[in-house]
Amino acid sequence: MSSSLKLALPFSLLRKTPHLGRASCQIRSRSKVLITRASLARENARGHTPISTPTKQEDVIDVNPPRGTRDFPPDEMRLRNWLFHNFREVSRLFAFEEIDFPVLESEALFVRKAGEEITQQLYNFEDKGGRRVALRPELTPSLARLVLQKGKALSFPLKWFTIGQCWRYERMTRGRRREHYQWNMDIIGVPGIEAEAELLSALVTFFKNMGITSNDVGIKISNRKVLQAVLSRHNVPDDSFAAVCVIVDKIEKLPQDEIKKELSMLGVTIEAVNGILDALSIRSLDELEDLIGPESGAVADLKQLLNLANAYGYDDWVHFDASIVRGLAYYTGTVFEGFDKEGRLRAICGGGRYDRLLATFGGPETPACGFGFGDAVILELLKEKGIIPSLRLEADYIVIALEDHLRQPASTIAARLRSTGHVVDLVLENKRLKWAFRQAERLNAKRMILVGSSEWEKGTVRVKDLSSGDECDVTLDDLVTQQNYKVS
Amino acid sequence: MSSSLKLALPFSLLRKTPHLGRASCQIRSRSKVLITRASLARENARGHTPISTPTKQEDVIDVNPPRGTRDFPPDEMRLRNWLFHNFREVSRLFAFEEIDFPVLESEALFVRKAGEEITQQLYNFEDKGGRRVALRPELTPSLARLVLQKGKALSFPLKWFTIGQCWRYERMTRGRRREHYQWNMDIIGVPGIEAEAELLSALVTFFKNMGITSNDVGIKISNRKVLQAVLSRHNVPDDSFAAVCVIVDKIEKLPQDEIKKELSMLGVTIEAVNGILDALSIRSLDELEDLIGPESGAVADLKQLLNLANAYGYDDWVHFDASIVRGLAYYTGTVFEGFDKEGRLRAICGGGRYDRLLATFGGPETPACGFGFGDAVILELLKEKGIIPSLRLEADYIVIALEDHLRQPASTIAARLRSTGHVVDLVLENKRLKWAFRQAERLNAKRMILVGSSEWEKGTVRVKDLSSGDECDVTLDDLVTQQNYKVS
Repeated sequence: MSSSLKLALPFSLLRKTPHLGRASCQIRSRSKVLITRASLARENARGHTPISTPTKQEDVIDVNPPRGTRDFPPDEMRLRNWLFHNFREVSRLFAFEEIDFPVLESEALFVRKAGEEITQQLYNFEDKGGRRVALRPELTPSLARLVLQKGKALSFPLKWFTIGQCWRYERMTRGRRREHYQWNMDIIGVPGIEAEAELLSALVTFFKNMGITSNDVGIKISNRKVLQAVLSRHNVPDDSFAAVCVIVDKIEKLPQDEIKKELSMLGVTIEAVNGILDALSIRSLDELEDLIGPESGAVADLKQLLNLANAYGYDDWVHFDASIVRGLAYYTGTVFEGFDKEGRLRAICGGGRYDRLLATFGGPETPACGFGFGDAVILELLKEKGIIPSLRLEADYIVIALEDHLRQPASTIAARLRSTGHVVDLVLENKRLKWAFRQAERLNAKRMILVGSSEWEKGTVRVKDLSSGDECDVTLDDLVTQQNYKVS
Repeated sequence: MSSSLKLALPFSLLRKTPHLGRASCQIRSRSKVLITRASLARENARGHTPISTPTKQEDVIDVNPPRGTRDFPPDEMRLRNWLFHNFREVSRLFAFEEIDFPVLESEALFVRKAGEEITQQLYNFEDKGGRRVALRPELTPSLARLVLQKGKALSFPLKWFTIGQCWRYERMTRGRRREHYQWNMDIIGVPGIEAEAELLSALVTFFKNMGITSNDVGIKISNRKVLQAVLSRHNVPDDSFAAVCVIVDKIEKLPQDEIKKELSMLGVTIEAVNGILDALSIRSLDELEDLIGPESGAVADLKQLLNLANAYGYDDWVHFDASIVRGLAYYTGTVFEGFDKEGRLRAICGGGRYDRLLATFGGPETPACGFGFGDAVILELLKEKGIIPSLRLEADYIVIALEDHLRQPASTIAARLRSTGHVVDLVLENKRLKWAFRQAERLNAKRMILVGSSEWEKGTVRVKDLSSGDECDVTLDDLVTQQNYKVS
């Protein structure tokens, strides 16, 4: 008995260990799972289904999805589909083409040496052929791989977008999950800042389409050349650059002493650290120009970007903010981050220029920039603002046979209505009319078709308009062609 | 040198081992990857991008997706989106609601004891928390898990559909891949055969919408109760039933001696094996009734299903065929399989009733049936029949600045056209007009907007209709409101 209990409960028990604590966790006992039995017995009026208790304890499974992951029951799925539809619509307006890659990639694609969080949190393993693979933590490396693979067959510049699930094995704190979906838009092959301006325009278009204003959300922009200029002034070697950026990005999350310690381990002097901290506090381009001068190109890039923002008409959304560095090693130029102006949420989206990523994969140096936009923070924001539209089910008809022997004509009716493009819910079992009306309401069905003996003998069915309550008897042909009758 | 080569090439080298042979494989050398360099250099007229050779050999990555998996470049993605759109449209017509689950699940969800191929080919591993997890090989167990989790909160019957990627670690033969997408429709809580009839109607509706006729595709139906009746006549114990079904399903793939050997290991006598083989050869319900009688309910179920098929109007698509068993352990009643009538492809789709799956997970016994429909075989069939519509990109405008300093007005124009719902490709860099016309053709753009100095000084741009060649100069306001000008 105790050994079968062990077989049944390892996942649940793991959830009780304090360092992995989870607010909503509970041990699922068999009685919890069986809670649906009575309700099912009530619904299954025919009694076709013998209800039996499972006999083997070890068969009881954990009914939750793996820790840190989500199911999408219908209401959550409607929300996700609505969000993804809006991602796609903006991408389409900007003439971007959709792509996708496997959620499982070679681990080598994500192994970088700059100490990024993302590469330390891989969902990685060895497959049965001995290959090191990983669930992708982000989409950009796969994009770079695909560009290299297609090579000459591609017509540059590429304007590509993708929406995909990404995985990180994170400590489960602050409600963070281990998977999320991410919308990416990328422009490959355009060296000029026009590419960044176009991407920012897509972001702002998305926010506006959602009903979000520049009072709610802003986009902070900076350029890694700022940090590079400061570092080279303090003689920090170029090949520490990515690693320094990764550390500096954590400046608001870690104590300053910790940051200084990590930087000094990279050979960054205390003077250089102070120089970095000074530079990061700058919020005006004039001040920036005073500090780093024109050589790095950072000021010119940022000025040009702000001018283009003005031409596109989204200058009220963007702000220069030197503290933006971003945590990915591969950014080389512009970096940006969308944030809620109340400052209560994590970054909504982020991106930048990564002109050297393809080269680090063995390809030619290729100008590229893009952004990632997760599904979690934006939904939090939209919910807070109360601007998610009602996402209702919408059926045209619900069809119910009032007696068992009328199930065949009911099927015929459903099939013919569907063949003319109508959404039809067909009641497949003995249900009371009261149930059917509840179901119709849940589906927001417009009309109910009642198939009863006396009408069917005359070759008709009853059509009931569910908003007015009007009803009339109609032949099947008239029903399908919507002629010779009227309910409203 | 040789050690860095080892670092760079393990994946490529693995592909050369004969037992893992792959028709299209090749060792990617650095020169292959660098093939795009020249073309990029040509395109990047501004010369912003220094082209440099990567210096470290070990940075060269394999540009192919992991063995047995696919990328979706734009043309493949359009095809996938079109197919999925059609899956969704049929599901919507039948008033099914979409759901989804994590692609990564607890391994326990897929571990069954009946010896199915699917449970022997798991992409499984231990995560960093020591949990056994697996990339899902199919969607039904997750569905069952979600139903148990939601329990009383659900309103039965459920009519749910999902489209998701599934993974199997298979030997790479006959072009089979290790991942595919699958469309599932399931009805949970309906004990009667009406549920199967509704699902088959959805399948046929999908085929018809694709332009496939009953000359191209058929659906073989049978019922596991047939095999059960035969087995109980030969005193095969009930708890061998699932395992026997799994073996019998392989009857066309394995030599008969092998089948007989595997069955005898389950205690099935040679007489019982011959009884099974006889029963599987039956193709008429009368003959079936003669053999197994009415007690099992199999004949009644099948008759009722064919009658409903007639009422729905798809009786020409379905055929009783006792050889259909299906390879999943959990089916308990009706089983069916879609096939191409030329017999050259694998099964297009398959499904059946699985009334005991939820109980084996520790839940109440719950009537359920559903089908899975992969993305691979149907696309092969559609390609063979030549009935995939042309899936073109469609842009309304391509906007090009003829000089660098006009890039800002070009951005303004693109933004304003997009704000009124137009799909606009904005040229972001110096490109020749010839290139822009090629690009317009690729995007099937309707009009080109040329922003030139002399027009812009007068506050106008040139609009060129790309089908007629007509052009005229238009102010920005007139362009956006589409007033006071005409090109056609």
